[in-house]
Amino acid sequence: MPITVVGSIAFDAVKTPFGERQRMLGGAAVHFALAASFFDVVRMVGPVGDDFGEAELDVLRSRGIDVSDIEHVQGGRTFFWRGEYGWDLNSRETLDTQLGVFEHFAPSLSGASRASEVLFLANIQPDLQRAVRAQCQDTRFAALDSMNLWIDIARDSLVDAINEVDCLILNDAELRQLTDKPNLLSAAQEVLSWRPAGGGCVVAKLGAYGAALITPDGYFSIPAFPLETVVDPTGAGDSFAGGFVGYIASQPPGSRLTAALLRRAMAYGTAIASFNVEAFGTERVARLTLAEITARVAELRRMTSFSVERFRGVRGGR
Amino acid sequence: MPITVVGSIAFDAVKTPFGERQRMLGGAAVHFALAASFFDVVRMVGPVGDDFGEAELDVLRSRGIDVSDIEHVQGGRTFFWRGEYGWDLNSRETLDTQLGVFEHFAPSLSGASRASEVLFLANIQPDLQRAVRAQCQDTRFAALDSMNLWIDIARDSLVDAINEVDCLILNDAELRQLTDKPNLLSAAQEVLSWRPAGGGCVVAKLGAYGAALITPDGYFSIPAFPLETVVDPTGAGDSFAGGFVGYIASQPPGSRLTAALLRRAMAYGTAIASFNVEAFGTERVARLTLAEITARVAELRRMTSFSVERFRGVRGGR
Repeated sequence: MPITVVGSIAFDAVKTPFGERQRMLGGAAVHFALAASFFDVVRMVGPVGDDFGEAELDVLRSRGIDVSDIEHVQGGRTFFWRGEYGWDLNSRETLDTQLGVFEHFAPSLSGASRASEVLFLANIQPDLQRAVRAQCQDTRFAALDSMNLWIDIARDSLVDAINEVDCLILNDAELRQLTDKPNLLSAAQEVLSWRPAGGGCVVAKLGAYGAALITPDGYFSIPAFPLETVVDPTGAGDSFAGGFVGYIASQPPGSRLTAALLRRAMAYGTAIASFNVEAFGTERVARLTLAEITARVAELRRMTSFSVERFRGVRGGR
Repeated sequence: MPITVVGSIAFDAVKTPFGERQRMLGGAAVHFALAASFFDVVRMVGPVGDDFGEAELDVLRSRGIDVSDIEHVQGGRTFFWRGEYGWDLNSRETLDTQLGVFEHFAPSLSGASRASEVLFLANIQPDLQRAVRAQCQDTRFAALDSMNLWIDIARDSLVDAINEVDCLILNDAELRQLTDKPNLLSAAQEVLSWRPAGGGCVVAKLGAYGAALITPDGYFSIPAFPLETVVDPTGAGDSFAGGFVGYIASQPPGSRLTAALLRRAMAYGTAIASFNVEAFGTERVARLTLAEITARVAELRRMTSFSVERFRGVRGGR
C-alpha cells in the first residue's frame, strides 16, 4: 500500500563525539521516507526553499520516493536545525532552529497523496496534522509522532489528532508528559482509553533501550540493536517509524493488524533505525539494502529469544 | 548447588510517591538471598547490630535461608540507609547512610559458606570482595556487583575483583564509567577483554528498561516486566541478581554455562525483580511463590517473541 508522509524536510548541522556535519539532508519526513521506501511507494509532502536542489531530490528519487508533493517555496529557505550531542549521545542540545519555509506551511496534498492507504504524520503542529488527516479519507492505517513542545502549547489539539489515527508513536518521556502518568505502561493505557472506538496502538520509543508496543491486547518490547559505535542518533526515531509503518504498508490491503504483524513491524523499524545511527544523517540508510535489513531483523530475533524450560524446583513447591 | 552471598544487611527508610516506610528490612544481601532462595540453599554472610532481631531473622528463615553466618556485633547498630525517590522513580536521593557495624566488617566465612559452589559478592568494598573470593576455593560460579563509589576510589582493586569472578553484574551507567566507554556494548566488551583466561559474562542492569547479557559469543537483551505501578525500586537490582545467580545454581553441578541457560537465568532474575518493586522492601518477595515466578517468566517470553516471516519485498530486490 502506498504511503504518504507529511513533515519536516530540513538541513541539519550536527556535532557528535565522532565528528560533525555543517549541512546535511535531514528532517523527519526525509528519515521516515528513506526507511519506508523499502516497502512501498512513499509520497513526501513538505516545503523546501531555494537552497534545496537536485542533489537532495536525487537522494530521495534514488530510493523511488515520489517527490512531486515537495513544495518549492520561491524565495524561501529550507528548515534548518543545528544540534550537538553529549559524550554518551543521550543528551542533545539544540543550538539553532530556523523555521524558514516551514513557518507558513499549509499542507495541500495532491490526489495521489490523498489516496495513499497508509499515512504518517511526522512531528508538526497538531492542527496541521489534523488538517492532513482530514484530507485523506481512504487511509487504512494512520500514525503520528509529536514532541514535548506541542504537549506544552497545543495539548487539546494533539489529543484530538491522536484520536484520529490508529497509532501514536512517541518517546517514553513525552508519553508520560502527555498523560501525566509516571509509568510507561499506565501512560500508554491512558492514551488507548481516550479512543472513542477502542483499538489502536501506542509505540513508545525508548531511545538506546529500544521500543515498546502497547495495544489493548498486550505488551511487546524489543531492544535497540546493539552497536559498538553510534555516530549520529539524529533521525533514529523517524527511521524507526518509517520501518514500522512501512512494514505494515507492505502487507496486502485489507490485512488485519494482528499482534504478529505489529511485532514484526517493530523489528523492521528497530533494524532500520540501527543502520540510521551508524553514520551522519541519511548517509547510511541511503545506501542500505533490503538484505542488510532482513539479516539484522533475524539477528534481533536471536538476541531476544529464550526458551522456558519447566523449572524443576530443586527446593520443591515453595 | 548451594549459594553463599556476602553483602549488606540493613534497615532502610524509604519514601516513594506511593508511601513511605521508616524502618524495613533491606540491604543487598537480604534482597539477593530472598530471590535466590527459590533455587537452592542460600548462606548469608554479613554483620548486624543489637537492633536486628528475631523478626528479621524469621523473614529469612521462613525462606529456608541459612542465617548462621550472619554475625551479630555486640553493642553495634545495623547498617541504615534512608532515601527518597522522585516522581517517576528513576531518580533517587540518598538522605542518610549510617554504616554502623558495616564500618569494621571483616568477612569470615564458616566452612559451609566457603564450600558453596556458587558465590555472590554483593556491592561492598572490592578488597573485601577479593578476601571472600580467596576463601572460597570450591566455587564453580562467582558473580559480583559494585557501585560508582568503588569505581571512583578503588578502581584498581575492583578490576582485580572482577577478573577473579565469572560474571560482573553492574548498572549500565556504572559499566560505562568503569571502562570510560560511552557505549554499553563496547563497555561490556572491554570488561570481557580484561579477563586473562577469556570467557565470562557481563550483565548490564538497565533499570526500568531491563537487562542485557554480554558474553564473548553474543548479546542478549530482556526488558523489565511491565508494571502499571512500581511502588519501591529499592533492591530491584539485587533481586535480579538473586534470581539470575539462583537459577544458575539450580542446575546440576558440572552443567555448562550455555547461552540458553544464561538467558533463562536472565528471565528468572527479571521476573523476581519485577515482584520486588511491587511493594516496599522485601514485603512482596517474602510472600512470593515459585508458581508466580514461572508464570511471569512465561509472560516475559510472550512479550518478547516475534516471528520472522520472509519479507517478500513488494518493491523487489532493493
